[in-house]
Amino acid sequence: MFEKYIKAAGGEVKSSLVLKNATYLDVFTAKLRKGDIAIVGEKIVGVGEYSGETEIDCSNLIVLPGYIDGHVHIESSQLSPEEFASLIVPRGTTTIIADPHEITNVCGMAGCEYISKASESVPLDVKLQLPSCVPATPFETSGAILDGKDIEKNIKNDYIFGLGEFMNYPGVVYSDPYVIKKLEAAHAAGKIIDGHAPAIYGHELNAYLCGGISTDHECVTGEEIEEKISKGMYVHIRHGSSTQNLGNAKFMTDANSRRFILCTDDRHAADLKEKGHLDDALRRLVADGADPVRAVICATLNCAECYGLKWRGGIAPFYLADLVAVDDLKNFNAKYVIKSGKLVAKDGAPLFDTSKRYLPESVLNTVHIKELTADDFILKLKGKKAKAMTIEPGGVVTGCEIVEVESKNGDAVVAGTDILKLAVVERHKMTGNIGKALFKGYGFKGGALGITIAHDSHNIILLGDDNGSMAKAANRLKEIGGGMVIVDRENGEIHSLTLDIAGLMSSREADGLQRDSRALIERAHAMGVKREYEAFMSLAFLSLAVIPKLKITDAGLFDVEKFTFTDINA
Amino acid sequence: MFEKYIKAAGGEVKSSLVLKNATYLDVFTAKLRKGDIAIVGEKIVGVGEYSGETEIDCSNLIVLPGYIDGHVHIESSQLSPEEFASLIVPRGTTTIIADPHEITNVCGMAGCEYISKASESVPLDVKLQLPSCVPATPFETSGAILDGKDIEKNIKNDYIFGLGEFMNYPGVVYSDPYVIKKLEAAHAAGKIIDGHAPAIYGHELNAYLCGGISTDHECVTGEEIEEKISKGMYVHIRHGSSTQNLGNAKFMTDANSRRFILCTDDRHAADLKEKGHLDDALRRLVADGADPVRAVICATLNCAECYGLKWRGGIAPFYLADLVAVDDLKNFNAKYVIKSGKLVAKDGAPLFDTSKRYLPESVLNTVHIKELTADDFILKLKGKKAKAMTIEPGGVVTGCEIVEVESKNGDAVVAGTDILKLAVVERHKMTGNIGKALFKGYGFKGGALGITIAHDSHNIILLGDDNGSMAKAANRLKEIGGGMVIVDRENGEIHSLTLDIAGLMSSREADGLQRDSRALIERAHAMGVKREYEAFMSLAFLSLAVIPKLKITDAGLFDVEKFTFTDINA
Repeated sequence: MFEKYIKAAGGEVKSSLVLKNATYLDVFTAKLRKGDIAIVGEKIVGVGEYSGETEIDCSNLIVLPGYIDGHVHIESSQLSPEEFASLIVPRGTTTIIADPHEITNVCGMAGCEYISKASESVPLDVKLQLPSCVPATPFETSGAILDGKDIEKNIKNDYIFGLGEFMNYPGVVYSDPYVIKKLEAAHAAGKIIDGHAPAIYGHELNAYLCGGISTDHECVTGEEIEEKISKGMYVHIRHGSSTQNLGNAKFMTDANSRRFILCTDDRHAADLKEKGHLDDALRRLVADGADPVRAVICATLNCAECYGLKWRGGIAPFYLADLVAVDDLKNFNAKYVIKSGKLVAKDGAPLFDTSKRYLPESVLNTVHIKELTADDFILKLKGKKAKAMTIEPGGVVTGCEIVEVESKNGDAVVAGTDILKLAVVERHKMTGNIGKALFKGYGFKGGALGITIAHDSHNIILLGDDNGSMAKAANRLKEIGGGMVIVDRENGEIHSLTLDIAGLMSSREADGLQRDSRALIERAHAMGVKREYEAFMSLAFLSLAVIPKLKITDAGLFDVEKFTFTDINA
Repeated sequence: MFEKYIKAAGGEVKSSLVLKNATYLDVFTAKLRKGDIAIVGEKIVGVGEYSGETEIDCSNLIVLPGYIDGHVHIESSQLSPEEFASLIVPRGTTTIIADPHEITNVCGMAGCEYISKASESVPLDVKLQLPSCVPATPFETSGAILDGKDIEKNIKNDYIFGLGEFMNYPGVVYSDPYVIKKLEAAHAAGKIIDGHAPAIYGHELNAYLCGGISTDHECVTGEEIEEKISKGMYVHIRHGSSTQNLGNAKFMTDANSRRFILCTDDRHAADLKEKGHLDDALRRLVADGADPVRAVICATLNCAECYGLKWRGGIAPFYLADLVAVDDLKNFNAKYVIKSGKLVAKDGAPLFDTSKRYLPESVLNTVHIKELTADDFILKLKGKKAKAMTIEPGGVVTGCEIVEVESKNGDAVVAGTDILKLAVVERHKMTGNIGKALFKGYGFKGGALGITIAHDSHNIILLGDDNGSMAKAANRLKEIGGGMVIVDRENGEIHSLTLDIAGLMSSREADGLQRDSRALIERAHAMGVKREYEAFMSLAFLSLAVIPKLKITDAGLFDVEKFTFTDINA
C-alpha cells in the first residue's frame, strides 16, 4: 500500500488526483504556499509539482484541510446522518466528533449503532462519542440507562471513539462512584472524555479535571478560558443555532491558540442549509476580526491534535486527503470538497448519493404508549391556587408563578384563560406515567400541541386547553412514530410532522422536511402561540430538570432549585 | 483510583505531596504562574492553594514539567540504563524516547528486552523504539537481523513504543519491499516511526514521508527545517556530545514552534556527568538567546504531543507528576526532581538506589570468536602498492591513500612505518571472518589496540603493528566479554577495560568507569596515538559502511562511494 504512495510522491508514477496550481494552507507554519497537491487513494502524497490521472485546476482557489467539528449532536438538525452529511460536507466539513446523546436516551446503544452505520454510506468521518449521561437525570424515565457497567462494556467498541460530554459535573466533583466508574472505564480504554463544565473554577475545576476530562465547550469569559486552558483543557469556539461563543476567539494569543478548537454543538437544519456549518463559523470569526489562518487552524490541526486524529487536519504527505478549496479566506465559499481523496462536493452541492437511508427497526416506532383518552388529562387541584410554569422567550430557564384556576368535576378548567395544561407522557416503557403541570403565557388556544422531543429523555410533551385534544395529539404521535402534532378542537383536524427516527429525526430530505415543519409552526402561531416563542422547540426544554426553575417530567413537577419534586397545589 | 485524586483536588482531603508557593510554568499559555502544586499518587491533582501530608517549600524555585528526551541511544553513554538514569534524572529528565539500536545489533530482541527490564527499577520512563535497521547495512555480519517479519511481530509488543529512526532512507524512497514491510507493520500497530533524513528535500522528502515517518533529528539549515515542518514533521533540536544542532532553535517562530522538540541522540557519560543532559541543552539555548519558556515547552509539551504522550509534559490536574524545580530559567540547576509523584533527586543527586543492576545472561559474554593467533593477522599483498584508510580528526569520514608497504614471508610489514594494520573480527556468529586493511597516520606504535564498539554491527575492531599483539588483544576482549584493550608488545602487558553489557556498556558505576577509561585512553596516547584523535572511539566508526570513503567490515574493504567491496591492492 505504501509503495503506491511513495512511487507517486517521488514522481515515478502519476498520482490519481492532483489539485493543480493551488494556494494551500500549511497549518504547521501558518503560511499560505503555492504548489500542486498530489493525491493517491485516500492520502495526500506530496506537495510540489505533480501530474495526475485526474487534475483539478485550483489556480484561483485556496485549499484548506477539511474542517473538523469538535462536538456536535446530529439529532439537533432533526435530520438523518446521511442528510446531515449532504448539508455539511459541501460546506467543507469532513470529520465530526458526534455525541448521539439524544437518540441514545431514546434507543440506548441501538441509537449509537444506528448513527455509526448510517454514517458509513456518506463521505464524512463520524467519530462517535458514547453518551455519558443516559439518563441525564434520575428524575424522569428515559428510553435507556447506560450505567457504569454499560459504559465499561461499550466504550471498548471499535466504533466508539470516546466518552461524550460529561454534563454531570456535580457527580464528578463529589466523586459519585457511579460516575467515577464511567470515567475510569473510558480512561482505561484509552479514549478521550469530553467535558461540559460551565463556570467551574478553582478547586472544583481541578476536581472535575481529575476525572480525566479533556475539553470544554461551555466557556464564555476570558477568565474562564484562561483558567481552563492553563489547566490543560482544549476549549471549543461554538457556533450553534442558539448557543454561541464565537467571541471566545478574541482570547486567543500566540501562545495559547493551539488549545482552541471549533464546534457547532446543536445546529438546526435551516441554519445548516441557509448559513452553513463550520464555514459559517469561519466567515463570522473573520468578519469579527479573527486572523483567518489561525481560525482555520482551530478548525483543522488543533481539533485533530485535541482528539488524537493523527495524519489529519493538515496538507502534507501521508495526511488524509480531506480538503476544501475555497474562493478566499473571507467568504469561505467551498468550490470543491475532497474526502479521503475523492471529489465529493462541488459548488456547495454534494456529488454523493444522498437518497440512501439506513433505517433499522431499532430506531423506528419508538412511541410506546397505550391509547389515551380525555380522562388521562384530568388535573385535580386541591384548591384554586396552583403553581404554573412560565418561560422567557429564547431561553430555557423557566419561572414559577402562583395562579388561580377554577375546577369543574374535579378537573382544572383552563380554556378561555392565559393558562394551559402541560403533560409529559412517558413513551418508552409503557409505564403509563403522565406528569402534569400548568403553563402560563404561551398564547396557544383551542386544542393541543405535542412533540416527542423533550430533553433529555424525550418523552411526549403536550400542551393544550382541552383534554380530548391532548389525548388525540398523543395518539397521533404514537401512530406516526413520533414527531410534532397540532390538534384543532374546533374542526377536529389533526396536523402532524413525522420524525420517524426515534421521534427526534426525520428520514426525509431536508428541503421537504423544513417546508412542512415551517407550515406546522405557522399553524401553531395561527392558533395563538406568541411569535417570540419557537412554537414547538420551546416546549422541548420544559422537561430538562437540571435547568431552573420549575420543570415537568413524566414523574411530576420538579423544583430545580430545591432539587426535588414539588406539589402543584400552591 | 480517581476518587482519591478528586477528593484531594477539591480540597476535601490532604494531598500526599504539595510543592508549596511555587512559581510554575504553565506550558499551555506559556506563562509563569504562582501557586501550590498538589500531588496524589503519580498525578498532579491541582494547582492553587493546597496542603499536603508532605510539603516542599518551593518559594524561590521555578517548577517545570519533567523534561522529555525525544531521541536517545543509551548505549552511547557506555552506561547501564540504571546508571544512565542516575545521571540524567537528577538533571530533570523524567522520560526518554530510547532507541536501543546498538545493543540490538549485537543481541537482537534480547537487547531491547534488557533495556526495557533494566529501566524498570529506576524512576525514568523509558519509551522504547524498536530499532528499524538491524543490521544497518548488508555489508557486514551483525549479531542479529530484524527483517520485516521480525518487525511485524515485535512492534506489537506492549513494551515497544514505536519504530526507531529509519536511517535507510534510500530504502524508503525506492520503496524496497523489505523496508516497506517494516513501515507498514509499525503503522498498522498504530506506533510512531522516527525519521533520520539528513538533507532530503522536495519529492524525495515527500516519498520518505509517505513511509509514515513523523520526526527528524538531522536538520541543520533553516531551509530544511522550514520544509520539513511544513510537511508535517516534528524537528529535533539536538544536544549530543558530538552531533549538535542547537542552532535549530533560532528558526522557531510563534507559528511553527510547536513542532520543535529536544533530544540528545548520543551523549557520553563524561558530558552527562560534567555538563548535564537536557538541562544543559536548555542552558545553552537560553545563553544563545532562545526564549527560556519556549525552550522548556520544546523539551516538555511539544515532545509529549509529538509522541502522543497524553497527560505528560504539563503542570495541570490529572497530568503525570513529573516535575523539576530549578533555581532559575538561565542556569536550570535542578533542586528537586519529582517522578510520578515521588521525590527522586535533590541538589543534583539521585535519591533512588543506583546500585541495582539487571544483568541477564543474554547481554553478557557476547564476544564469540575462536582463540586467535598471530597468523590470523597475516596480510598478503600482491605488490608494494596498497590502499590505506586515513581519517580526519573529529570526523567519521575516511579517506583512501595509496601507500607503499614492504612484505616479508607473505605478510605486510608495517612496524616502524606510519602505517598500521586494521582488522575487523566478526564476533557474533563465529564465522571466522576477519576483514583486513591498512590505516595511515594514527600514530600508534608497539603493539595493538582493540575495541568491541564498531558501528553499527559492533564487531571487534583491532589496530596494530604486530600480529601477535593483535591476536592477544582479540583474545583478551573475548576473555572479558567485550570492551577496550591495549597490548604492549615490548613488555607483554595487556591493559583492558570491560564493557560487559554487549561489549558496549559497563555494568559499573559511571565514576569508576570513567576513571579507568581515561587511564586507558592516556595509555593509548602514550603509545603514540595522536592527541587529535579519540584513541578508541575514532576506531568505532571505521566500519560504518554508509559514510565515505573507504571502510572496513568483517567482510572486507568497502568503497562507500562505489558502494561495493574493493581490493586492498592498488
